[in-house]
Formats: sequence, C-alpha cells, structure tokens
Amino acid sequence: MSDYKITDLNKVKRGSIRATYDVATINSIVDAGFIAHVAYNYHNKAITIPMAYARIDDKVYIHGSLKNRLLTALLEAKEASMTIMHLDGLVLARSGFHHSVNYRSATLFGTVNKIEDTQEKDKILEAIVHQMIPDRWDSLRPMSDKERNATLVVEMTINTASAKIRSVGVADEKTDVDLPIWAGIIPIKQVALRPISDNELSDEVKIPDHVLEYYEENKL
Amino acid sequence: MSDYKITDLNKVKRGSIRATYDVATINSIVDAGFIAHVAYNYHNKAITIPMAYARIDDKVYIHGSLKNRLLTALLEAKEASMTIMHLDGLVLARSGFHHSVNYRSATLFGTVNKIEDTQEKDKILEAIVHQMIPDRWDSLRPMSDKERNATLVVEMTINTASAKIRSVGVADEKTDVDLPIWAGIIPIKQVALRPISDNELSDEVKIPDHVLEYYEENKL
Repeated sequence: MSDYKITDLNKVKRGSIRATYDVATINSIVDAGFIAHVAYNYHNKAITIPMAYARIDDKVYIHGSLKNRLLTALLEAKEASMTIMHLDGLVLARSGFHHSVNYRSATLFGTVNKIEDTQEKDKILEAIVHQMIPDRWDSLRPMSDKERNATLVVEMTINTASAKIRSVGVADEKTDVDLPIWAGIIPIKQVALRPISDNELSDEVKIPDHVLEYYEENKL
Repeated sequence: MSDYKITDLNKVKRGSIRATYDVATINSIVDAGFIAHVAYNYHNKAITIPMAYARIDDKVYIHGSLKNRLLTALLEAKEASMTIMHLDGLVLARSGFHHSVNYRSATLFGTVNKIEDTQEKDKILEAIVHQMIPDRWDSLRPMSDKERNATLVVEMTINTASAKIRSVGVADEKTDVDLPIWAGIIPIKQVALRPISDNELSDEVKIPDHVLEYYEENKL
C-alpha cells in the first residue's frame, strides 16, 4: 500500500495542494517526533492533550496511568485520532494574508484496543522510550511488575491518515512583489542543548554514547 | 481573577502536582507560542489540527478560509478547546517508568463566536501576525476587501483552563539512584535560524529591525 484511502474523514479540503496521503511520507513525519496531540471526547466536548507515542508498522502506541481520562475515553470510543506537527519556519510575506508557516503535519485516524500481554507491553514501552531517544532502553533498570501493572498501554491501528506539508518560499501576489517590503523565511528548528547529568550521579558514570549521539544529531 | 475556576472539565487528575490554574501562568504559556492544537468534533469524532492564534486579554482568535471544516464545526458547537505545548527537555531516568519530558502545556476551554465587524477583524488579523512575529504588521501591504471577505475569524472567550508544567530534574526511585546508569536532562529548545530573503526581493530592501530582533531573541 502506498497511499491511505481518501475518505470524508481524512480528505484535505483547504490548501489541498499541500496534502499527501502517501504512507511513507506520513510515517516519516510520525517518526521525526515523539509527542502527538491526541484528540478525545469528554461529555461530547473535543479536547486534545500532548502524549508520548511510538510507531511500529501501522500501529501507534500511547500510555499512561490506569485511570488516565484520555486513554479510558479512547478505549470506550474504540477509536482515536492524533496529530503530529513539526514547525519548520515562519513565512513572512509582503501582505498579512500570505503570511504562513513551513511545517509538516500528519493526522492519523484509527481503531484502538488495550494491550494486556506482559511481553507485548514491555516491547511497546521500550519502543516509546526508543522513539524519544534511540538505544537507551537496554541500559535501564528493568521494569517492575508494579510499574507494568500501573501502566495502561493503548494501541491505535492506523486506518487512514493525511498530511500537509509546506516547505517552499514566500507566495506573494505578483502585484506585491515589487513593493519595498522585506519578505522571506525565518527557519525554525527544535534543537537539543548539551546534556545535564543528574546531581546525584556518581562521577564514575559517564554520559553514554546514545546520549552523546542524540545531542550531536539534534544540536544546532 | 488570579485562578481559573476548577470544574470537572479542566481539573487535572493525573500528575496534579504539576497542575496550575493560575491565569497569569497560563497566559505566559499561551503568549510564548503562536500555534495551538485546536480540537473539534466531526461526526462525533474528535480531531485536532494545529492553527495559528492570537491572545488578547481573555480571548483567543483563530482564522481560516470561509469553509474551513474546523472553524465551521466550532461555530456550530458554539464552544472550543485548544492546547498550546512547549517541549523543554527530555528527562532520562534510570528506569523506563520515570522517563518523562520537561514541558509547559496549557489547555483552554471556551465559547466561540464569529467576528463580523471589519475593523475588529483587521485588529485581530494584525494580532495573529503580531503573535507570530511582533511589530511586522505596519510594514505590510494593507489587507484588501477581497482578502478580508475570504477570511473567517473566530473568537474564543476562555471560560476555564488548566496548565501542566514540569521543569525539574530526574525523579528516580531512591533505590535506583546508586545504580551505574546515566541519568539527566537533555534540554530542548525551538530556535530561529538566520532569515532568508525572498529571491524576488530587490537588493535595496534590507532585512528590517523587527526580523533581526526576532532572530536575535530566538537564535540559540
């Protein structure tokens, strides 16, 4: 499958020139982050909350405490939707109307279920840490039964999705181009600063490679 | 008023030690950004989409094209909710369970209405550009009637809100602190890179002060 099916739900109606339904492109937007804004209904009011996630194939996993309001609402609704967005720049045009941003945003729609199996739960919680920072899990103190039992893990199978991407320059009216008004892009980037070791850390414990590599790959 | 009223809607139940209902704190989170994830219902499915916004006092404004699905759904529901979140760091603990992020997140709930008055619309669209980059509006080509008429402006009056903030170090189990596992924070920051002038810009038009100041204030 190369494209998600276009339905009434995921069809991009406004600015459709920036829309894509390509699975690989959407996966790349999802994989470039680890925080999604998940939408849910509470007494018929739509609310959105940022949550850490991991993607494995066509599934996205989120987790929280057993009584987490969002997770219990999704399990009751049996479906979920979430959006992952990366801001890449301010688009400063010669008119207010053509001001915009460069961005990559993916909205996913799917059905949800609760993960009960212990080994599957561990694999998913590892994937959630891996999505935040690769290759860290194996160095950690293993999860206890108490911790595992206190964690609700929810799986969303992506049924359909769409993305919008803007990655071009200023798109002014032709009649505005010669006006003596500065126009251009201010690129925006999310960067990592130098890691700060925990105060209580023994001097013998050095910053590991997976942390240094994360910093090198994400610094300015 | 110093605190938003705590209702069933905005009450933070999980991790309530990080919760605040303080109006000034919530305003500072809102004012530190310009993109909100707005939640809406489409055929009883909760969806969230990132939108540019401006805050003026206890109102938040969003805009789009006249047929924008999200905006028309909010106007029909007569209410809205949105979340503004800033990621400040990865919290890398000695156990998977205590991995977390440092962040500031505000969720706002309110009633909505459509702005029809021409002067009010202009003032709001100016505020939306100002929220993205201060002091730019006056240098722009004024809005045309055609542009104004093609723009739907929606006002949300904030009725209640809550925020969650995490800005501390690693919170490991006491029994884990002496393990030979590195723990610490990787600070995360959204930064501006050097402005890129539009290709079609005349050499005589220099980068204006408001753009240089934005870059200086937001660069690493």
